[in-house]
Amino acid sequence: MDNIRIFAPATVANVSCGFDAMAFALDNLGDEMVFKKTAAQSVCISKIEGAKLPFDPHKNAAGVVAALMLEESKANFGVDIEIFKKFKPGSGLGSSAASAAGSAFAVNALLGKPYSNLDLVKFAMQGEVAACGSAIADNVAACIYGGFVLIRSYEPLDIIAIPSPNQLRVSIIHPQIEIKTEDARKLIPEDLPLKTAIAQWANVGGLISGLYESNYKTIANSLVDLVAEPYRKQGIPHFDELKTASIEAGALGIGISGSGPAVFAFSKGEDSSKEVVKGMNSIYKNTGIDYNIHQSQIGKKGVRLL
Amino acid sequence: MDNIRIFAPATVANVSCGFDAMAFALDNLGDEMVFKKTAAQSVCISKIEGAKLPFDPHKNAAGVVAALMLEESKANFGVDIEIFKKFKPGSGLGSSAASAAGSAFAVNALLGKPYSNLDLVKFAMQGEVAACGSAIADNVAACIYGGFVLIRSYEPLDIIAIPSPNQLRVSIIHPQIEIKTEDARKLIPEDLPLKTAIAQWANVGGLISGLYESNYKTIANSLVDLVAEPYRKQGIPHFDELKTASIEAGALGIGISGSGPAVFAFSKGEDSSKEVVKGMNSIYKNTGIDYNIHQSQIGKKGVRLL
Repeated sequence: MDNIRIFAPATVANVSCGFDAMAFALDNLGDEMVFKKTAAQSVCISKIEGAKLPFDPHKNAAGVVAALMLEESKANFGVDIEIFKKFKPGSGLGSSAASAAGSAFAVNALLGKPYSNLDLVKFAMQGEVAACGSAIADNVAACIYGGFVLIRSYEPLDIIAIPSPNQLRVSIIHPQIEIKTEDARKLIPEDLPLKTAIAQWANVGGLISGLYESNYKTIANSLVDLVAEPYRKQGIPHFDELKTASIEAGALGIGISGSGPAVFAFSKGEDSSKEVVKGMNSIYKNTGIDYNIHQSQIGKKGVRLL
Repeated sequence: MDNIRIFAPATVANVSCGFDAMAFALDNLGDEMVFKKTAAQSVCISKIEGAKLPFDPHKNAAGVVAALMLEESKANFGVDIEIFKKFKPGSGLGSSAASAAGSAFAVNALLGKPYSNLDLVKFAMQGEVAACGSAIADNVAACIYGGFVLIRSYEPLDIIAIPSPNQLRVSIIHPQIEIKTEDARKLIPEDLPLKTAIAQWANVGGLISGLYESNYKTIANSLVDLVAEPYRKQGIPHFDELKTASIEAGALGIGISGSGPAVFAFSKGEDSSKEVVKGMNSIYKNTGIDYNIHQSQIGKKGVRLL
């Protein structure tokens, strides 16, 4: 296998109450990337379409991951990478994670699959360091494992795949405004009341139970984020109205995707998800803010060969 | 049905990382209670064996719950209650909860079962108010639902039953020292670092996943309490040695039962649980502190007719 084309899905980190611990992959939104073995024994990024990202492999998430893996595995070949971004960096939908995880998945395939999914997450986390300065696992883990993941621990890294109900659908609105993860993180106080923390972990437990049981009511009840949303929503225009409109349209609940600005809603079933999209549209259409809306199933497969 | 004898199990609240949100019932340790319909249209506690508890029904958890239910349901009969305590109040094993939940279960049976389990928990919580001053749901919910429960929310009260693996066993040591729940609660700071809270809810998610998946390794990894244990263990003699001995004997992990002083350990399988009991014994046998040790399956049935 010397030449592969892959799909690396967009991902939603945090998932409301699951702040810094949960994430899931989308099914139909994501980047395409082409990886070719070369004789050069180095990494070259020969094409980037759809976004302005560095061609220097030492500064590009995909390049950093590929170089690291070739070095670690003492590969006797190099890699040429083409990146076709299908969703925008800075959306809160794991753009750098898609590049990093896509590169980890593809280089592993070119190497003959010596690495486990957990290994690939560790490599991809180094791409996140290159792209945004910190080794966060949530988006890359969701991209590599597919479906829902729980980052149970960082030291040692422990990732748990969580099942999800077949009718669960996602509606996402991405206002075209910029929010830097670093800035969004600073908004959240470094300490929180014990009572708030207890309510948050009770909801995390509820969300995970709801996903296992395919219990949409439990999922809906558990989508309460007392920790990040109260602070971060201030940076997302019309967040409360989006929430009201989505719930009124039948959504199980909504949350900020990663650190925003994208906002996701869960629905039971395709029809409900379409109604939620209409509800989101009704709030944003006259605001003068550019935005995209997406609809997706949960991406149970994650990153994959095309 | 005018005369019933019931078994109300001891319960373990908190369950390590699940502080103030999780609990489970034991199978073979608990109180027996006898309830008889009377013509008096009032509640009488005619016998209490095994502990010094108030005979005044307004001050006794079982009496308070029974009176409340008879009043709410406009019953045309009264109830005579006999209580046979088989484990000690103040153990951290839900002694007052067993009385309260046992009464709720039994009076519901005498009434012809008009109430749901959730209703019974609400009644039983009033017994907890009488016994210890606060309307905590965890022990009474575990007693009534059986197995593991998650208190997802108090307002509105939302209790989720969580399955558990068939080979999960509990070893419990109860040092005969007194710890008041109120005092134990004061030890825990009212605020905690966000990082600690995130690690805690990641472990709650892991524990719940492990219980659903019958994944003993995940359960073991998730039994980390960063919130209560570091403070409360100071009141439990030789806690760290108990932990080391239990883990060395093969335990999946240990935790403080409720606010202590009882300490529980999980094991995979009966044999492992027996080894853990030996390990616990080896720590306490020469301390001069009186103690009991119990071994049990998870009490999947909860409170029940005898």
